[in-house]
Amino acid sequence: MENCPDSSGRGRPLGVWIVGARGAVSTTTMVGHAAIRRGLVPPIGLLTEAQPLCEAPLAPLAGMRFGGHDVSATPLLECALALSADGGPMDAGIAQAVADDLAEHQERLRRAPLRAPGTPARETVERIQRDLEDFGRANAGARTVMINLSSTEAPPVPDDAHMDPDKLEAALDAADTDPGVLPPSILYAYAAIDAGVPHVNFTPSAGASLPALEQLALDRGVAHAGSDGKTGETLLKTALAPMFAMRQLKVQSWVGFNVLGNGDGRALSDPTVAVSKTHSKAKAVPSILGYEPDGIVRIDYVPSMGDWKTAWDNIQFQGFLGTPMNMQITWQGADSALAAPLILDLARLTDLAAERGESGALGHLAFYFKSPLGSDEHDLSKQHQLLLEHVGCG
Amino acid sequence: MENCPDSSGRGRPLGVWIVGARGAVSTTTMVGHAAIRRGLVPPIGLLTEAQPLCEAPLAPLAGMRFGGHDVSATPLLECALALSADGGPMDAGIAQAVADDLAEHQERLRRAPLRAPGTPARETVERIQRDLEDFGRANAGARTVMINLSSTEAPPVPDDAHMDPDKLEAALDAADTDPGVLPPSILYAYAAIDAGVPHVNFTPSAGASLPALEQLALDRGVAHAGSDGKTGETLLKTALAPMFAMRQLKVQSWVGFNVLGNGDGRALSDPTVAVSKTHSKAKAVPSILGYEPDGIVRIDYVPSMGDWKTAWDNIQFQGFLGTPMNMQITWQGADSALAAPLILDLARLTDLAAERGESGALGHLAFYFKSPLGSDEHDLSKQHQLLLEHVGCG
Amino acid sequence: MENCPDSSGRGRPLGVWIVGARGAVSTTTMVGHAAIRRGLVPPIGLLTEAQPLCEAPLAPLAGMRFGGHDVSATPLLECALALSADGGPMDAGIAQAVADDLAEHQERLRRAPLRAPGTPARETVERIQRDLEDFGRANAGARTVMINLSSTEAPPVPDDAHMDPDKLEAALDAADTDPGVLPPSILYAYAAIDAGVPHVNFTPSAGASLPALEQLALDRGVAHAGSDGKTGETLLKTALAPMFAMRQLKVQSWVGFNVLGNGDGRALSDPTVAVSKTHSKAKAVPSILGYEPDGIVRIDYVPSMGDWKTAWDNIQFQGFLGTPMNMQITWQGADSALAAPLILDLARLTDLAAERGESGALGHLAFYFKSPLGSDEHDLSKQHQLLLEHVGCG
Amino acid sequence: MENCPDSSGRGRPLGVWIVGARGAVSTTTMVGHAAIRRGLVPPIGLLTEAQPLCEAPLAPLAGMRFGGHDVSATPLLECALALSADGGPMDAGIAQAVADDLAEHQERLRRAPLRAPGTPARETVERIQRDLEDFGRANAGARTVMINLSSTEAPPVPDDAHMDPDKLEAALDAADTDPGVLPPSILYAYAAIDAGVPHVNFTPSAGASLPALEQLALDRGVAHAGSDGKTGETLLKTALAPMFAMRQLKVQSWVGFNVLGNGDGRALSDPTVAVSKTHSKAKAVPSILGYEPDGIVRIDYVPSMGDWKTAWDNIQFQGFLGTPMNMQITWQGADSALAAPLILDLARLTDLAAERGESGALGHLAFYFKSPLGSDEHDLSKQHQLLLEHVGCG
Repeated sequence: MENCPDSSGRGRPLGVWIVGARGAVSTTTMVGHAAIRRGLVPPIGLLTEAQPLCEAPLAPLAGMRFGGHDVSATPLLECALALSADGGPMDAGIAQAVADDLAEHQERLRRAPLRAPGTPARETVERIQRDLEDFGRANAGARTVMINLSSTEAPPVPDDAHMDPDKLEAALDAADTDPGVLPPSILYAYAAIDAGVPHVNFTPSAGASLPALEQLALDRGVAHAGSDGKTGETLLKTALAPMFAMRQLKVQSWVGFNVLGNGDGRALSDPTVAVSKTHSKAKAVPSILGYEPDGIVRIDYVPSMGDWKTAWDNIQFQGFLGTPMNMQITWQGADSALAAPLILDLARLTDLAAERGESGALGHLAFYFKSPLGSDEHDLSKQHQLLLEHVGCG
Repeated sequence: MENCPDSSGRGRPLGVWIVGARGAVSTTTMVGHAAIRRGLVPPIGLLTEAQPLCEAPLAPLAGMRFGGHDVSATPLLECALALSADGGPMDAGIAQAVADDLAEHQERLRRAPLRAPGTPARETVERIQRDLEDFGRANAGARTVMINLSSTEAPPVPDDAHMDPDKLEAALDAADTDPGVLPPSILYAYAAIDAGVPHVNFTPSAGASLPALEQLALDRGVAHAGSDGKTGETLLKTALAPMFAMRQLKVQSWVGFNVLGNGDGRALSDPTVAVSKTHSKAKAVPSILGYEPDGIVRIDYVPSMGDWKTAWDNIQFQGFLGTPMNMQITWQGADSALAAPLILDLARLTDLAAERGESGALGHLAFYFKSPLGSDEHDLSKQHQLLLEHVGCG
Repeated sequence: MENCPDSSGRGRPLGVWIVGARGAVSTTTMVGHAAIRRGLVPPIGLLTEAQPLCEAPLAPLAGMRFGGHDVSATPLLECALALSADGGPMDAGIAQAVADDLAEHQERLRRAPLRAPGTPARETVERIQRDLEDFGRANAGARTVMINLSSTEAPPVPDDAHMDPDKLEAALDAADTDPGVLPPSILYAYAAIDAGVPHVNFTPSAGASLPALEQLALDRGVAHAGSDGKTGETLLKTALAPMFAMRQLKVQSWVGFNVLGNGDGRALSDPTVAVSKTHSKAKAVPSILGYEPDGIVRIDYVPSMGDWKTAWDNIQFQGFLGTPMNMQITWQGADSALAAPLILDLARLTDLAAERGESGALGHLAFYFKSPLGSDEHDLSKQHQLLLEHVGCG
Repeated sequence: MENCPDSSGRGRPLGVWIVGARGAVSTTTMVGHAAIRRGLVPPIGLLTEAQPLCEAPLAPLAGMRFGGHDVSATPLLECALALSADGGPMDAGIAQAVADDLAEHQERLRRAPLRAPGTPARETVERIQRDLEDFGRANAGARTVMINLSSTEAPPVPDDAHMDPDKLEAALDAADTDPGVLPPSILYAYAAIDAGVPHVNFTPSAGASLPALEQLALDRGVAHAGSDGKTGETLLKTALAPMFAMRQLKVQSWVGFNVLGNGDGRALSDPTVAVSKTHSKAKAVPSILGYEPDGIVRIDYVPSMGDWKTAWDNIQFQGFLGTPMNMQITWQGADSALAAPLILDLARLTDLAAERGESGALGHLAFYFKSPLGSDEHDLSKQHQLLLEHVGCG
């Protein structure tokens, strides 16, 4: 990991508003950010702290401030220590060493507003926006980026409001709009874009992926990125599937099984929620191969795994003369530690794009997502090249 | 696998002279070539029969004629059926369906000349060249490419003759030159380049990798490519290692164990020979990562595996916050069926380069090799891009 | 595989009536039986052809005659060759070499009777019994064993008829009994037991597992065995789980994923059917460990796998000091070839028990089943010892 | 893990003299012993703290006192914390919680005597015996068991002294006996047996496996057990190979690759040492199957693994009709945590045997060893049964 220029004196601070701010990914992000700044650990997993991206005029790590919403009120240090219990991946010593940083971020966390039955969703949006405004003020006018890290939702109930900005406004104002039409991820995305705050959807929930919100983002000149962070098994697929394509090997089936035990896993054990995730995970391979092999993607909740995650993929393919061959991959990682560095990268890169006046879906960030908005590219190497070229480091 | 133009009427025929012509890879290449031409199987594994490379002005498959040397005299059909015995990967029905094609190729095979003790190596070279000349004549003046598919040799005894063309000539002429200084792979490479025949070294043996032979190739304007075909585990590594590099994940160890049971495996069970191969296999990962993780590469001979090959890789890495993670890969393929399509591609692409007047080591064919000559690039995606751009299809 | 006495001259012939006689397991059983008898292959997988069980007074292989029911009328040779297509596990050469044997068995196959709507199930039972009687007559009074190899059914609709023989009789006679209460596996089991024919349920369908049928078997003095053949992943579990128990290692989770592509896989892709199978597969580990770790068992249908089957198990456990450890197993086998030798063993061992006057569920055959009837033992070694001791070879 | 009677008030204390007392296994044993006694962790991995063995009249855990020899003088707490550094398996919090216990054991550790060149080995033996005697006195006459946990040695230089007690005595007395004939493991074993102290050889070093020492043990009425603790991959093999044997499946090849990074791994990276280990590991499978499949066992040193150990086994086998099948196992454990509970069990069980007047090699402890002395049984289930029956709990 090559030398990077010291960026600590550069630029004004950057506020990162996290939806799901006390969850495992958010907590790991904040612990890691503080540990890197304090020199306790090297910046493993961060492209923005390595050559060549660290040469770009990014907001410095040192100036990042975290705030956010959560339905829970558990203290951040407690959230962090829970990730180290029972052989969990978080290093308790590091978490304790950054307790002061966590306490400071915690001051800026707010309880997530919930839409009361029979009230317009607009009220929730306005409460979100007030909290965002307060956060900006507290950061002395620093730029803000919102990142959605909350639990995966079921897909929204289809509605015309998703396709048309005017109908979306009407739906927000109506007291009787079905909550399933406007789940929280949409309200947060709307609140951010409407307020001119760049938005990153790290989850497979709808978020800003609606055509109506893409239109709004373009109208307001706001950048956004998503969706569904590419952290583990899908990352692997998008590194490996190109090999079969490049070598003209014929993939017959590609099946993937995932087990994990954290809150994300628990949410996904609801089949109506899981469909959002497995649909997102199933896109990469057919897109890269150009044809659709037999395929299965499953995510199962195994509580004893905690924040650890194991994926197993079995790939059956034909070689020369139709010879049957196969490969298996076992991937064992920590769910949150795979996601957290991408959060820091995405906050800084989305902010950079906003600074540069880019708006709408940021296709050059496809490298970070399972279901990239603004890009059809799933091949990891090509996404990487696209990222570097777009930022100006290619 | 996309539509390609029919190339059967194009160009004059191409002769392929194979060193080790009755071995498993050679036999599989000839069976597959015939089976594809007869429409028995699709051209899986061939880039030269798929978009975009099939648009290049390559010698057509239909015009390829095989000849070669071997120390054995076993009939080709028998070699093919041996690969299907005991659950082996060759389809006996296909082998029998192309028996006539094999019989025709067989007419052009010659017994490999061996250097008699106390005679100059030059005599062996001249016998090789006479056989090459006869082959060209029998093919009505068709272009010829030589491909080395013979068993891996031990590394040559170091000698100045390897560095300097004049000293090489002297060593060829001396009756007392140590055979370890000029093992067969070097004699064949010299014979081809000296005769103006492009040469492909698909093995980890020395072949044309000597500076003296690179100089000779440039002097004579002859193209050559090598070395050590990238067919299985190393292919995987060069697809996968870039993922760790791109994502700034820190690889701590990457160990790989290979078991196989064919003649190649038997040759490699001699530790002095194995060093050629394991040295070749060990290059890719450090080159791609830019640092050297703990690493082990082993190849073991397990007779009951026959032509099947299993590789297992264990990759230990650190993620964000130093979190320990790992992945394992099991790869089960047929050794010869992984190599054979590359032989057809390399013969046609080397011939194309020769036609275009390129000479010396063909770096743009790095995509096909574990130890690419003329290129330092090991990243599979970048090698692929380089190949397409060089040929004019990028 | 030790020497066994020649049993060909011993005893009278044994008729094996297979429900699902043209399915993959049945076809593989008949091909294998003929190939072993003709000396084409050794008797791999058969305990009854190895020491010490081959010393028991079993019906000789040479005297086994197959008949059976099937809903399909595809010729047996065609069924066998279908298992060798597309890289399938059946050896086409062997199938063709025993074509005459298959043709002979085929003469004794009958179309499976189906219960017509609004008719009593008794009519179906009587048609089954007539076919059984004809089969016995054609075999010159040979003993008959019925084996259920038909597709897995959904669990039956719960009903008092399952618990009480008299109510079962009444339900068989009533024209309006819900077909879900008396699915085919129950009708076949009843038909066999009522006719004094020993019955083996190799599937997870209800079959003879009902208390009412156990009572009937005891009343009539008929032996039966079941259920759900232990052929692959569960076999492994019952060999491996005792290691954790014996060594006092604490299993936290044991998850298993299975993919296969044959008719059995297709049937199991119906979730209401799959529950029969996954419920059966989930029993062994908690029974052996004495506690219930987190556990998942899935079977997924991947058509391109054909008759090949891959299972992956991930076992997370704690060692000394609570140290987290894990192991993974990948198992790649041919579904039918794993089951077929057990069919030959079970037919002969069930017949032996019947000869010896044993009746009701044969607990000593637990070695062969995922959900053993008449035994609570799941530990493979203990089941093996029980089998040998019971037969008199222990 | 069932309820056991409280044994704390029973019997007199037991002294455990460890050769290699500051190594990873020894340190983990002492940490775990203390943590269990203090109720910090449950007694996972100990048969002697679970039903039925805990009913036997064993020396209580509470009364165990550790002493021993080591060439190093590193404080035990430091040894323990080194095992938790860099993601190592030891829990630092637990190590620190038992620091007082470690300090107490440390008082009884002695620097290992080394044989000076040109002196008789007898002098070393006498120094060992004096330290043993002091240890017994310090423990108020408690019984003592010696356990060899030191680094694996190369196999001894063959010599008649190994076969005959009188020649062994002579070799001990001669100043010019080749040190390779009498490596430390033999001197320790002799010292213990000669002093009437039961001896356990947990390593693959020669130790008490010599016929001359077995004779001495019988003459003196001293019990001993060994050799080479069965902790990981071999444990698995002896649980799994019986499945293939019981089911008459034909194993064609069984290859195993092991990587680890602790001191044991470093010692084994010397090929002359590794042969002791791989020879020991290779015995189980052929013994259980009754025939010798193709087989490879390798142990490789990968420093970054630390005390973690990964094994991969590939098993190729034939099923019914010769159908090719295979399975792979990946095993990831902590080397020392797998070994440590066996040390506690072996100390108590060897002491119990000595109390009961048993002498010579204790075959009933084969359950714990790769190369069991006094038993030819490798099947884990049968070894378990033998253990329980011998102790009186079967």
